Amino acid sequence: VNELSLIRKIRRLKGARGIGDDCAVIPMTSGNALLTTDLLIEGVHFERETHKASDVGWKALARGLSDIAAMGGEPRQCLVSLALAPWNIARWVDGFYRGLLALAQRERVALVGGDVSRAPQFVCDIVVVGTVPSGAQLLRSGARPQDAIYVSGELGGAGLGLARRAGRAWRRHVRPEPRVALGKFLRGRATAAMDVSDGLALDLHRLCLESGVSAELEGPLPLFPGATRAQGLGGGDDYELLFTAPLSTPIPARLRGLRLTRIGRIRQGKPGSLSDEGRPLRITGWDPFSRP
Amino acid sequence: VNELSLIRKIRRLKGARGIGDDCAVIPMTSGNALLTTDLLIEGVHFERETHKASDVGWKALARGLSDIAAMGGEPRQCLVSLALAPWNIARWVDGFYRGLLALAQRERVALVGGDVSRAPQFVCDIVVVGTVPSGAQLLRSGARPQDAIYVSGELGGAGLGLARRAGRAWRRHVRPEPRVALGKFLRGRATAAMDVSDGLALDLHRLCLESGVSAELEGPLPLFPGATRAQGLGGGDDYELLFTAPLSTPIPARLRGLRLTRIGRIRQGKPGSLSDEGRPLRITGWDPFSRP
Repeated sequence: VNELSLIRKIRRLKGARGIGDDCAVIPMTSGNALLTTDLLIEGVHFERETHKASDVGWKALARGLSDIAAMGGEPRQCLVSLALAPWNIARWVDGFYRGLLALAQRERVALVGGDVSRAPQFVCDIVVVGTVPSGAQLLRSGARPQDAIYVSGELGGAGLGLARRAGRAWRRHVRPEPRVALGKFLRGRATAAMDVSDGLALDLHRLCLESGVSAELEGPLPLFPGATRAQGLGGGDDYELLFTAPLSTPIPARLRGLRLTRIGRIRQGKPGSLSDEGRPLRITGWDPFSRP
Repeated sequence: VNELSLIRKIRRLKGARGIGDDCAVIPMTSGNALLTTDLLIEGVHFERETHKASDVGWKALARGLSDIAAMGGEPRQCLVSLALAPWNIARWVDGFYRGLLALAQRERVALVGGDVSRAPQFVCDIVVVGTVPSGAQLLRSGARPQDAIYVSGELGGAGLGLARRAGRAWRRHVRPEPRVALGKFLRGRATAAMDVSDGLALDLHRLCLESGVSAELEGPLPLFPGATRAQGLGGGDDYELLFTAPLSTPIPARLRGLRLTRIGRIRQGKPGSLSDEGRPLRITGWDPFSRP
């Protein structure tokens, strides 16, 4: 492998566009651009022994798309920075791009640039560019007391999958589904939104901090079959959308088959504090720095 | 260190703007957006023992700004993805951002987002967003036979610095200067441009490949005092601009004090082949995959 031959190969991939200059060129349209960048690192976000190359590629992009979805945007382009480890043979890299571009093509996202280098372990940084009409972007900071809190899909599946390493839950861990259609639907409806990437409790805590409010969970969580409530609250990697809306805003129970569940209420109170049926809730979730 | 406290700290830095949501929001203006992403990895691009934190931060951004300059753009925003190693204590991270933001503020670039994670060794991926009027972007593919070839500044300084690890050459290695003003000046003048990041010979080879032409070097290279011709041709990390223009286009000998030197001529011939005063030139330069 050398840099020139690797880039030559990437440029020829279906879904790649305009690669070869020092920057990607993106025509401006109206509205706002959304930009997100997400690291995916061997030994931190995946294991070489258990994760297939194509799943790693899929997930790298899915994480970025999920961020665009959380802001109500439509993803358009992506750039991929790769640091290859000595064990990343050409076949592995091919598999990585195959998985990434399968999702990119489904979501009509063009691969327009990136960087390649080496490192002792594999590192991918994905950049996704999206668009959103001016003022329509969903932020974490808009939740108001009395707003209802909703979450899409089912929680805890990825956490369960990581424990089981097999079955539907494992697939949920390795091939998360960015909720792009839901994000667009929430424009003008949700007062605040974010994706649940590190665990519901930690992410709701963050949303409440940004909004200067507290939150009360009420009723059962929509759990993935077999997942525990602890996995639902702190498991991470689910990539569902967490959002708030006034009670008066109609939110359907399903959107194109995706469950939307009301799980609680925003309250006035200590910013970021959470409670569960009246009892204080411990903030659990995934923090890269809390692992060895 | 945990993620929340680190992000809280980054948001308060002078030069940071609007951090805290799943994406950065960037208002679209007219023209084209330029996007570039560059990895900077411990043990590949710098050594923990010899490189100061603030220099690493400066260089991470300078590499991205240099890409924007090479396309004739004006840098506007940056995003920083950091994977911190166990040895990256808070003081080191502070120094990194201090160096990065010193350059960002000088160049009026806002830090608008990023990601933080951990890795066995420090990894930074910088994303820089720039703007350029539609159609004014400088590409690698526009060089035509008979165009003159130019390079800015002096070559080989960074290579010499890496060998000496002291003095002005070392400073050149750790604190490269992105040539943003020159890039803007070249709009409408240069037929092709790129930055010299991996060595003049390798980068000129790449430019010629994209343009489907060959190149002939003529006369002495503008070498950094003390640098050898080999360092000038293959040293890398100089971040000068390499560009071509028709002979009829006036190019000054200096632009705001920065030397601009004519170093050769574009020729019809095997795409990417280089010669030096009539003799074939070996393509030397920095390739991340050619190191152990």
